[in-house]
Parts: sequence; C-alpha cells; structure tokens
Amino acid sequence: MYTVNAPPDRVVAVLSADERWMTLALDLAPRGLGRTAPNPPVSCVIVQGDEVVGQGFHPRAGEPHAEVFAPHGAGAHARGATAYVTLEPCSHHGRTPPCTDALIASGVCRVVVSTLNPNPRVAGRGVQALRDAAIDVSVGILEAGATRQQAGFRSVIVRGRPWVVAKYAMTLDGKVAAVGEGNGKVSDAAARERAMVWRNELDAVAVGSGTLNMDDPALTTRGVPGGRYARAVVFDRQARSNPQAQAWRPGSVLVTAPDAAVSAFEASGITVVRAETPQSALTQLGHLGLSSMLLEGGPGLLSTLLDAGLVDEVRTFISPKLLGGGLSPLTSPDRRMNEAQELRDVTVETLGQDVLVTGLLSDIPRL
Amino acid sequence: MYTVNAPPDRVVAVLSADERWMTLALDLAPRGLGRTAPNPPVSCVIVQGDEVVGQGFHPRAGEPHAEVFAPHGAGAHARGATAYVTLEPCSHHGRTPPCTDALIASGVCRVVVSTLNPNPRVAGRGVQALRDAAIDVSVGILEAGATRQQAGFRSVIVRGRPWVVAKYAMTLDGKVAAVGEGNGKVSDAAARERAMVWRNELDAVAVGSGTLNMDDPALTTRGVPGGRYARAVVFDRQARSNPQAQAWRPGSVLVTAPDAAVSAFEASGITVVRAETPQSALTQLGHLGLSSMLLEGGPGLLSTLLDAGLVDEVRTFISPKLLGGGLSPLTSPDRRMNEAQELRDVTVETLGQDVLVTGLLSDIPRL
Repeated sequence: MYTVNAPPDRVVAVLSADERWMTLALDLAPRGLGRTAPNPPVSCVIVQGDEVVGQGFHPRAGEPHAEVFAPHGAGAHARGATAYVTLEPCSHHGRTPPCTDALIASGVCRVVVSTLNPNPRVAGRGVQALRDAAIDVSVGILEAGATRQQAGFRSVIVRGRPWVVAKYAMTLDGKVAAVGEGNGKVSDAAARERAMVWRNELDAVAVGSGTLNMDDPALTTRGVPGGRYARAVVFDRQARSNPQAQAWRPGSVLVTAPDAAVSAFEASGITVVRAETPQSALTQLGHLGLSSMLLEGGPGLLSTLLDAGLVDEVRTFISPKLLGGGLSPLTSPDRRMNEAQELRDVTVETLGQDVLVTGLLSDIPRL
Repeated sequence: MYTVNAPPDRVVAVLSADERWMTLALDLAPRGLGRTAPNPPVSCVIVQGDEVVGQGFHPRAGEPHAEVFAPHGAGAHARGATAYVTLEPCSHHGRTPPCTDALIASGVCRVVVSTLNPNPRVAGRGVQALRDAAIDVSVGILEAGATRQQAGFRSVIVRGRPWVVAKYAMTLDGKVAAVGEGNGKVSDAAARERAMVWRNELDAVAVGSGTLNMDDPALTTRGVPGGRYARAVVFDRQARSNPQAQAWRPGSVLVTAPDAAVSAFEASGITVVRAETPQSALTQLGHLGLSSMLLEGGPGLLSTLLDAGLVDEVRTFISPKLLGGGLSPLTSPDRRMNEAQELRDVTVETLGQDVLVTGLLSDIPRL
C-alpha cells in the first residue's frame, strides 16, 4: 500500500477560458507523437461561443496539418470563431501549403497560439501573417506544456539532433540489473507498460551492443492500442552485435565507428551511421528524421551520452526492493557530489509497486 | 516542481467513533518515542459522551504510564466513560503498579484497546483483568498503526533485539556518496531535517567505523524542539575508530570483536559490547535497553546486517540528480534479481526536492 503526500502546488488552478480550450488542444496534440517527425505534434481546436465546432491534430508526416483538419470539420461554423493552436502555424510552403492560409480562409477572427515556432522559416512570421489578415492573435497560453510536447521537434530544429530521453529501472539500492542473465525483472508490470507507451511516442528506441548481445531485446511496442514500432537504434562502435538479434528489422539503425566492418548489416538492409563522436552520431540520427530517442540501456551507453551532455531527460523507475550486488545505472568515472547533474521540472508518480521519477537535464529549445 | 498522483487507496475512509478517538490516541503516543524503552510508547484518551475528559501518554521510562495520567486528568469525569488505549494495559507489578488497577479505579465502564500486549506477563491478562472488573473491552481498533508505533518494544520483547531501521540517501543513479571526502551532501535540507526527527524518535543511531573515521559524524539531534540525543553505537570489529571522534560521548557504545583491544575506549567511559556475530551484537544492544536503532551507514555495515536478516525497515531518500561514479548503498555479493528482498507496506513521499521511500523487510512482532 502506498501513501503519497500531495505537495502544495498540487492545488487545482482556476483556468481562464483560453486556458481551458488550450488544455483540450494539448490533450489532442500528443496523439501524433512518434508519427509526425520532422513535423511537430500539433493540434487545433476551433471554438464558436462556448462550443467546439472543429478540432484536429497532425496525425503523421505527409498528412494534413492540424490547422487544415480543424477548419474542415468546422466548415461555416468557423466564421468569427476562435482557433486554439498548440504551435504557431507555419507561413511557408513545405510538403503542404502554409497553415496560416487555411486559418485565414476559414474565417476565424481570433487565433490563440500556445508557443512560437522555432523553425527559422516561421519564427513569428506565422503570427504576423495572421495579424496582416486582421486576425486577433494571442501568444503564450500554457506555453510550458506545449513546449514539452514539442521537445523532439524543437531539438531537431534548433540543435540538429534528437531529444534524448534516458529510461532505466533500478532497485532501491540503485541496481539496474543483476549480474548474469535471465534472473528476473527489476520493475513491475505497470512500469513496463508505461515504458511501452513511451516507445510508441518517441521516434527511436536505442540500446548499446552490450544490452543487445546480452538480452536480445525485441525493442517492439507491445500492448499499446494503435501502437507502432519506434526505429531501433543500436550503438555499437565495433559492429560486434549479433546480426541475428531481434532488434534488426527494416528501418533499424546501426551506429558505429567510421572504420567498422558492417557488410553483414548492410546486406540485411540496415541503415548504417558512421560517427567519430556521440555528438556526430546524434546529428546524423537527426538527419535521418529522428526527433526523439528513448535510451534503454545499458549503463555504458547511458554514461557515454550523459558525460557528453547529450541526455536531455531522465525517466527512472525505482522498485522497492534491495538486491545487493549488481550493475549500477551509470559507469561514469568518480566525481564530486557537487558535480552531480541535477534534474529540473521533476515529477514523482507511483506505478503499481514502483515509483517513477522524471526530470529534465536540458532546457527544451525555445525561439 | 513536483506532480504526484494520488493512488486509489488515498480516498479518505469514514471512521467510526471508536476509530476517531483511537486516532487521537495514536497521535499522542509517539511523543514518548525514544524515551520509554524498555517500555512501549502508549497513550490513553478518556471520552465521556462526545468529549475528551482526560488524556495522557507515557513520557519516559520510570514515569507514570498513560493509563495513570489520563484518569488523573479526568478525575470524577472518568466515571462511566470510555478509555482508549493504544496497547493492552499491563496487569502485573513492574516499576509501577498494574495499569489495569488505575483504569478500574477510575470508574470507566468501557476500554477500547488497539493492540494486545506481546509481553508474556500481560498477553491477554490485562484485558481479562478489566473484564473481571465488569468493564466492557473491545480489542483491535486501528491495530496496524499502533503496532507500527510499538515496533521497537515488540522487537525487544519478542525477539530480544532492537528494531533496526536503515536510513540512507542516494542519487537517482543509486550513489550514496561520492568517492573522497567533503564534496557536498546527497540530500536536500528537508530530508536532513526528517532524519533528525528519526534520531529523536529511535533509541540509538549507529554507524560503522569506516563512516566514523571518514566523516566524523556528530550523531546528535539538531533542530528538533525538545529533541534529545539517541545513543551513538559504533560497529567496529577491530576497534580502530578514532577515540577522539565526535560520536564518543557518555552512553556511546562500541560494538567490537571479542578479542579487540578497547582500553582507550573503556577509559573514556564508553560502553563496550563484544560480539562474535551481528545477531549477538544486536541481542546485547537489546540487553542495554535499546529497543530501536537507526542505521546511518555506511554500505559495509548496512550490507552485513541486511545479509544477516537483521534489517527490519528501510527509509531511503532519493535525490533527483545523477552522479556517475561513487559508492553504492550496498556492497553485498552479486545475487539474482529474483533473490532481491522486497519491501512491504511501502510509502512514497516528496520532501523538498527529494523523494522518500520507506518500507518494511520484517513483520512487526505481534502477540
């Protein structure tokens, strides 16, 4: 049985009407997570008086944007209405025409934007295009939540590399695994289910060659209705992974050193990324269209990326049991306690018997 | 900022009248924690109609018991009233006369007992003595909470050794300390304050010689109003601790091997316990009148007691930061994940920036 204290900031805030409608939009946008890259997951809700007359989200790269779906649903009801969009609409021609055009054509008289678009081709021009069309525009409503949903998009656009989320499960004495194989799971079923939801929401799921060869993880998305597989990425400097491992499937990526022998992998249609440094590897993964990556182990890979400053977010399951000997989550060299990397925007949640602690190590890039 | 989910069992239960008054008693009893050994912390609340007419708790060994204080305060108002006691009253002559006598003399017509007394000299005889005096007795109201408060008393009475609570603070990558000295605290001020409250409530605070010589901890109780010092216990097989360390004060205990040279310590008035095994050490600490002990480190001592099955409860602070290299909470040999020791009655709480996870490894001895 769990007892959880409610911190003072858990008091429910009174939301303005704009915040209430934007909350609805923010609930809708993440349905596109893991499917929209290189585009962001965005939603649009059109409100006439006190009624939603149209709503939509960007479901997948290549399909229409939210700002097209929503006016289409609203039809004539959009005239004089307010549109709530989680991200500043684009004002340029990409794979689709500018979203600002669709909003202007719909007849809405006001657009509420949560966050400005960090894409240098938009970056305020979307808002300006709407204002030029005599549409009233408000910016910044529930900005923090929207920014969080767009972390992957923002990371690729601003930093040229995916947003990296490290996930691990450890015991209450800080062990991610026992030494040796196949001797039981660290975490509860509820925690493992949550991790599957993340695989469905992030563009890639990554492991090191040690984990691949030891555990042969399938890196699939199981038990998530409508779920799809993230691209499997294997970090393996020396290309010594088992070419028969389950993780290798069409679209899987091998990240290796420039001089590694990879013919066995290339012959199977696996994408090979050759990189001198972790930073270069992530930049190349960004070029492949991966905006977010879930790092699932092991300690060596996590330590390498963390020490290179390339881990942006941490999600840790803690299972209330004591193991004793076993592997630590990190294998970094010794440092002083005051050199530890502190997490920001920390959340704590109980999941079955486990505790989930999450937090950020990087600021999500803003405009 | 923290977000904490409220689990379903956090729904507030509707309490019966008996449970409400017993809750009051259970709030009162712990004020004696750390002061009553070898007696238990017990409280008594006397209720006439819907009004508390007397209340008391056992403040300290040698002073009157709760069942004497409360009738004294109630005076004639106790006649026909109901007394709520957190533990079955004693029916034998100890340092004080039987508590059943005081309750019978007070004129109460009903006694509600939370838990039966595991002392073989009581063990149901207290309830029987009250019933023999034509007093109506109910047993078992909010038993779990009362049992928890009495863990130390129950441990010594039933198992002949203190209830051992391991406390440690670790980073989110499972490190209790950086390698090297004086390089910053693991946990937040709020966590350190809570640990001081525990030092005030438990009879002893223990460290190993490694921690003593490395950190020279004062093992005092600071910042707790009305706080007193727990007895400092140092586990040091080879008696190689620094005799000038701050932990040595009147009443401090050195636990060492039968053949260790301890003259430097004995000369300073330190109590010396000589033991072949951890089990024997704890039994002798029980003989010294210690019913509960807070184990504050380091990894070697915790591992030794844990592997011997002598740790009953765990209280872990988790600080949301990543260190990399450093010391693990445990130095036990490798084991399989399905051999990990699972905590029961787990609680999760946020304290400042830290997360506190607690749980039991042993059942609290019952009658």
